[in-house]
Amino acid sequence: MMELAIKKADVLIEALPYIQAFKGSIVLLKVGGSVMEVPENLENLLVDIAFMNAVGIKVVLVHGGGKAISRGMLNAGIESEFVNGLRVTCDKSIKVVESVIKDEVNANVVSILKKHKAMACSLHGDEIFVVEKKTDVHHESGRVLDWGYVGLPVNVLTEKVFKMIDAGIIPVVTPLGRCANGELYNINADTAAAALAKAMKVSKLVFVSDVPGLLMDVHDHETLLHSLRISSLQKLKESGVVGGGMLPKLDSCVEAIEAGVGKVHLVDGRMSHSLLLEIFTKQGVGTEIISDE
Amino acid sequence: MMELAIKKADVLIEALPYIQAFKGSIVLLKVGGSVMEVPENLENLLVDIAFMNAVGIKVVLVHGGGKAISRGMLNAGIESEFVNGLRVTCDKSIKVVESVIKDEVNANVVSILKKHKAMACSLHGDEIFVVEKKTDVHHESGRVLDWGYVGLPVNVLTEKVFKMIDAGIIPVVTPLGRCANGELYNINADTAAAALAKAMKVSKLVFVSDVPGLLMDVHDHETLLHSLRISSLQKLKESGVVGGGMLPKLDSCVEAIEAGVGKVHLVDGRMSHSLLLEIFTKQGVGTEIISDE
Amino acid sequence: MMELAIKKADVLIEALPYIQAFKGSIVLLKVGGSVMEVPENLENLLVDIAFMNAVGIKVVLVHGGGKAISRGMLNAGIESEFVNGLRVTCDKSIKVVESVIKDEVNANVVSILKKHKAMACSLHGDEIFVVEKKTDVHHESGRVLDWGYVGLPVNVLTEKVFKMIDAGIIPVVTPLGRCANGELYNINADTAAAALAKAMKVSKLVFVSDVPGLLMDVHDHETLLHSLRISSLQKLKESGVVGGGMLPKLDSCVEAIEAGVGKVHLVDGRMSHSLLLEIFTKQGVGTEIISDE
Amino acid sequence: MMELAIKKADVLIEALPYIQAFKGSIVLLKVGGSVMEVPENLENLLVDIAFMNAVGIKVVLVHGGGKAISRGMLNAGIESEFVNGLRVTCDKSIKVVESVIKDEVNANVVSILKKHKAMACSLHGDEIFVVEKKTDVHHESGRVLDWGYVGLPVNVLTEKVFKMIDAGIIPVVTPLGRCANGELYNINADTAAAALAKAMKVSKLVFVSDVPGLLMDVHDHETLLHSLRISSLQKLKESGVVGGGMLPKLDSCVEAIEAGVGKVHLVDGRMSHSLLLEIFTKQGVGTEIISDE
Amino acid sequence: MMELAIKKADVLIEALPYIQAFKGSIVLLKVGGSVMEVPENLENLLVDIAFMNAVGIKVVLVHGGGKAISRGMLNAGIESEFVNGLRVTCDKSIKVVESVIKDEVNANVVSILKKHKAMACSLHGDEIFVVEKKTDVHHESGRVLDWGYVGLPVNVLTEKVFKMIDAGIIPVVTPLGRCANGELYNINADTAAAALAKAMKVSKLVFVSDVPGLLMDVHDHETLLHSLRISSLQKLKESGVVGGGMLPKLDSCVEAIEAGVGKVHLVDGRMSHSLLLEIFTKQGVGTEIISDE
Amino acid sequence: MMELAIKKADVLIEALPYIQAFKGSIVLLKVGGSVMEVPENLENLLVDIAFMNAVGIKVVLVHGGGKAISRGMLNAGIESEFVNGLRVTCDKSIKVVESVIKDEVNANVVSILKKHKAMACSLHGDEIFVVEKKTDVHHESGRVLDWGYVGLPVNVLTEKVFKMIDAGIIPVVTPLGRCANGELYNINADTAAAALAKAMKVSKLVFVSDVPGLLMDVHDHETLLHSLRISSLQKLKESGVVGGGMLPKLDSCVEAIEAGVGKVHLVDGRMSHSLLLEIFTKQGVGTEIISDE
Repeated sequence: MMELAIKKADVLIEALPYIQAFKGSIVLLKVGGSVMEVPENLENLLVDIAFMNAVGIKVVLVHGGGKAISRGMLNAGIESEFVNGLRVTCDKSIKVVESVIKDEVNANVVSILKKHKAMACSLHGDEIFVVEKKTDVHHESGRVLDWGYVGLPVNVLTEKVFKMIDAGIIPVVTPLGRCANGELYNINADTAAAALAKAMKVSKLVFVSDVPGLLMDVHDHETLLHSLRISSLQKLKESGVVGGGMLPKLDSCVEAIEAGVGKVHLVDGRMSHSLLLEIFTKQGVGTEIISDE
Repeated sequence: MMELAIKKADVLIEALPYIQAFKGSIVLLKVGGSVMEVPENLENLLVDIAFMNAVGIKVVLVHGGGKAISRGMLNAGIESEFVNGLRVTCDKSIKVVESVIKDEVNANVVSILKKHKAMACSLHGDEIFVVEKKTDVHHESGRVLDWGYVGLPVNVLTEKVFKMIDAGIIPVVTPLGRCANGELYNINADTAAAALAKAMKVSKLVFVSDVPGLLMDVHDHETLLHSLRISSLQKLKESGVVGGGMLPKLDSCVEAIEAGVGKVHLVDGRMSHSLLLEIFTKQGVGTEIISDE
Repeated sequence: MMELAIKKADVLIEALPYIQAFKGSIVLLKVGGSVMEVPENLENLLVDIAFMNAVGIKVVLVHGGGKAISRGMLNAGIESEFVNGLRVTCDKSIKVVESVIKDEVNANVVSILKKHKAMACSLHGDEIFVVEKKTDVHHESGRVLDWGYVGLPVNVLTEKVFKMIDAGIIPVVTPLGRCANGELYNINADTAAAALAKAMKVSKLVFVSDVPGLLMDVHDHETLLHSLRISSLQKLKESGVVGGGMLPKLDSCVEAIEAGVGKVHLVDGRMSHSLLLEIFTKQGVGTEIISDE
Repeated sequence: MMELAIKKADVLIEALPYIQAFKGSIVLLKVGGSVMEVPENLENLLVDIAFMNAVGIKVVLVHGGGKAISRGMLNAGIESEFVNGLRVTCDKSIKVVESVIKDEVNANVVSILKKHKAMACSLHGDEIFVVEKKTDVHHESGRVLDWGYVGLPVNVLTEKVFKMIDAGIIPVVTPLGRCANGELYNINADTAAAALAKAMKVSKLVFVSDVPGLLMDVHDHETLLHSLRISSLQKLKESGVVGGGMLPKLDSCVEAIEAGVGKVHLVDGRMSHSLLLEIFTKQGVGTEIISDE
Repeated sequence: MMELAIKKADVLIEALPYIQAFKGSIVLLKVGGSVMEVPENLENLLVDIAFMNAVGIKVVLVHGGGKAISRGMLNAGIESEFVNGLRVTCDKSIKVVESVIKDEVNANVVSILKKHKAMACSLHGDEIFVVEKKTDVHHESGRVLDWGYVGLPVNVLTEKVFKMIDAGIIPVVTPLGRCANGELYNINADTAAAALAKAMKVSKLVFVSDVPGLLMDVHDHETLLHSLRISSLQKLKESGVVGGGMLPKLDSCVEAIEAGVGKVHLVDGRMSHSLLLEIFTKQGVGTEIISDE
Repeated sequence: MMELAIKKADVLIEALPYIQAFKGSIVLLKVGGSVMEVPENLENLLVDIAFMNAVGIKVVLVHGGGKAISRGMLNAGIESEFVNGLRVTCDKSIKVVESVIKDEVNANVVSILKKHKAMACSLHGDEIFVVEKKTDVHHESGRVLDWGYVGLPVNVLTEKVFKMIDAGIIPVVTPLGRCANGELYNINADTAAAALAKAMKVSKLVFVSDVPGLLMDVHDHETLLHSLRISSLQKLKESGVVGGGMLPKLDSCVEAIEAGVGKVHLVDGRMSHSLLLEIFTKQGVGTEIISDE
């Protein structure tokens, strides 16, 4: 028993320099929809966040809601349509999106955080994101795509977020926004997280998703890159090593760092307490991306 | 390795409710001279204190300096004299006491805390304790004992202590005081710690010494009392179970709790990281004494 | 149009001394379940609360959920049982109560406040109320009543509430609590509000319900008492003028004032913006109860 | 009566979004001498300011004193001399200016604000404005004009102003300044207001004077421009539509906005509570000038 | 010159322990009307106050206005009437009192403080003192005396005073008050100062008047008492040594100390910089009265 | 005696405008090793610093330790080696440097400040300076010089310094640093002071050394320059008037001012209380260097 006790103490002591380094700093976490599907993964992750909050890190959490929304659509008899991996959102869909992401997904996250004694408060994206309708030209066909009620953040009202984190509260943010005429829009959760991280110039932006980080070879976990500079990232992209579904996320990493965010982490939300281990122990378990300077 | 990582996470998560409960509260630690004699014990203890500081506990540290002072006396060619276990302090002795406890003992404690990245600052007792000369009548002979420059705190100037802990600094306090005419006095370190704890109405007062806590049978560690109320303590004393060298310390425990201190802990400084384990894990390793209400 | 403008200005100016008097003070509002049944009444009331928040009053809101819970019971196939007007709560019921009051009622209140740009955050009673099981002896039969999971607050953890109101956030509190062994209990919402008001020593405690205030003759609105001292209240009770369903509420008014709450108001939530008019205009529309001094 | 009550509530509710938007922001008001001549206008205006202060707007007030100074001159037997509409101030005049504007005009404003329970405090310009003597070359004659003790602000000591508004106090500022050698100078009140607004980077600068705002046709109130960008203002000037006495004021509007002031308003001080209506209702009654971005 | 420089340094160093001891503490100064009659004395005194403010003492100043008011009465053709040394104040008188004490005396004090770069702000007594009409029974005749508009403070609204001193501003307070019906009353300045000192529990209350302090023999300055406890004061009164005009002032000293004021000083305002010398040098020049404990 | 008292008052009053001007501003003092050799000079200087701290100036103290270190080297049997006036620091030397400068020199400074009731706390350079090894090319020989453990600050962690000065504590800083691999380095104390001054953008940087300031003719004290702009300094250098040992110090003056430091002062630490006189009296006794604007 004595031995066990000493091992426990060793773990706490190992965490000490990380706690000292990060307390008082702002960490923005984007939690992907897939992580939220497995209740145990989600709860483990939120306990990690409660821990970060308890040791004085100012955590902001932005979450998606992918599968829950698709289920909500199904229940409402609306067919889901995706272009370039992004949900096209008609006027019926946006009501389902709002209802599901606010009343189910967000409420659940807040409730689990409260269960673990963290002060958490839902802060819906439409309270802080001012958006414009997303209108892209399709690369191949050249026609203008109509994403419906999908918005791009053009302004972020950070005052409420700062008030909350300064009071020790974790704001749990939904990826919604409002455009000038007051209409509600859906925002891609990665985009919302990156926009908020940039507006707040946070110390760390962490994407928690269902990949282990950045792999040189996606089939071999041993090829995980633990740390790389954005210039190296650029080279990897050019050499074609990194690609596919990771590309948009990596682009927002680069964009965020260039806008003043300190570091970006990619963490695997399927692994138990990966966030805690990435932040508070020597064996970081994901990939960190840092500026060149 | 994965398994190890999960165990690490478990220890951090186990600490979470304790961190949540104690952050922002004031804990006053009295570290006895004997603990300070073994460098490894002292360093382990101070790392624990750095951890407490890092997670937002406001730590105040009062230390003694027994053996270092005796060595200093020897070097200065002064014979140490004790009455009822308390050092009689002549005018030559008090100079040695001041020099040893400030420049050696206190400086060493501050230096180790800084090494572990805690903001620590020496705060000498003569900056905060106003004392009167201790004058007791000897129980047997009836004569008034002359302890020389041994003082009893009659007033504690807590303003500087509060300023420091509010700025995140650990005040490292020497058990000295000054009487109205400006003369420097030695104070028994337990007495100094209890006086400061009472004046600040701290949440916890922890005595770290070279005993494992309160034992029903001093020869059997299995008889350690983990938690008891002051009324029970009274009964144990009356029944003669507790006695000897522990009596004065227990009296100051009772006095402190009656003056508004939340809890008193007795922790064994010889055991590695006992303080951390007592405060942040389920298996408390010492004795806690609480009020009857 | 000019005339209209001047009238508008007059109303704002009339509100000025009330804003000056109440800004910075804490007002605890208990909103009864019946008020929450009529969406328009509820929204009007919450807009009033957003106004109070905007002019610097620190509002805390405690709400009941009577009819919504009864509907939830019905849906779950549990029969509602009442003793002395208080819901008996079995182990199945408490799950329904928690789910309905948190996920429906509370979420709805928070959502409407946010719609009107007030920073609001749900704060569930089990985060702040420590309860003991309610066990009364029935007056007539002499047998001990078993209310099931109905608790009485024995301790209120006000720290989170103060943090929120100091950050400009309206805490929206559910009448739940947890006893020492961690079990969830239901609390009568009036009791919860009064306990919180006492623990926080608020300036005003306002009961918003479906009565116009205190009437000398319940059938004649012209007999509304605008202001009375608690000693007069005592006399009215003794003379039998006031009685019936109002008695328990009036008892908690008296108890709250005796515990240091400044004033208690009874306001009619069915009347449009009655709260705003009671607080910010000359024509108070409910009853205020004040101490004798 | 019920109907009246509801109308009152409607006015307060209409003001809600404006209060939410402006609380905590700094608004600098310049009140022209002509407005101050009519006691009723002045009192109405100051009540509006007390209202703004009460709902959490940080108001700074700079006032002129034109006619009162001219009367003071007359009493002192000094002839008033104006060049380009600006008072030439000899060494006798500056004494009269100081006495009248401090002891009469400023004292009166502070006194009325206090009467309406606003915390107000006189802050004389010579405490905050460092000036240089104004020396212009006359456009026609080419000779250097000697304005006497008329100064141009070259530095503004904003620390005291910020301390006051952060303590909830309205600083009431006289348009005076001191040059390096300690001599007192008169400053044009519009110039002083604009200089202070720029130095503090206030959210709004409001000129309250005896014109209804910016009119396309000065003889037709229906041609009032409610909102225009500074680029449009430039075009109006070039086209000759706007001109005459308004030009210098409009130039300081442009200059202020270019230096970081959020918005400039022109409000008619002769109209009862025009300020309140401009700030807190849908029907703004003056002209607002905003940046092009 | 070198020698002079060293002497200068010595004076500053002598002041050091006094500055260290008093910074952050609240000192309430009552300045009597007679001191204010001699411009040089008044200016010297106010420079001393500016110094106290500069080194971090929180100064509150209450002033009388005796002779200026009498002159004002004379100008207004009203005869001054005194009973027991207190001005009887009819309805015409109270208007003169208000005008003279606010617009002349108070404005002058604020203006001189500002000249010496202290942030000062007039705070009229009617903003903070709630009074009741003074009604005494005459000792000899037994009839109830009618003092007219002379009030006794029954409540003191200290919030504004604390806001000002916390912002580094010196509140300059006139001895006026308002009773429940809104009527303005005159208050004896000693009484007002003592009431405010008690309500704020200040560290020091200093009466600056035209006596050198407390003398054993009023004809011999060498008999000045530098320091005495309130019990000794009692004995002096009983023995008849102290008496006459000093009695009421000494009674308010005793009352203030018993209500929690730390110390009371009597300082001679006719002596140049006596206040500075009393507070910041070894040679105190007046009398200090302290509690018995 | 009366006359003496008045003179004392005059000195305090003379200091008033300087106290008003400097309170709240940050002053960084570099105290050279030679000044620290004469105990009386050091104590006088530290009393001056205690005074500055007491009147609200935020003092940061960086000290060297030249001669004490040389003595320490001698005792340890290590020969001191200097290149271009800078100590070459081998691996044995750096241990001696650390021990002497922390345990002797710094401890002594802190102890004297505490004796004079100033809150002071040692803050070792290795807690705040991140350094790189100094590697210069020798001007004449062209070879790369190896200074050993001599570092140049590349980053300064100012957070702890700001926390201390905001809590009223004087940080007493040793000129040490740590490079990325954790090794301890010595830093030239002038360089350390200038780097910290730049990182904190302090109002004043004061070099206290054993020269009277900047002299046109080093042999004639009458040629002391009291104030000069950095452009003039440049000209003096070019004309060869200023040169020799002063050059490196003057270069860091220029660099500091260009990086945003308000003013740099050169003060003679051998003259009693020169610092106090330079800061708080009309007769500044050293040289001040200011920017050209």
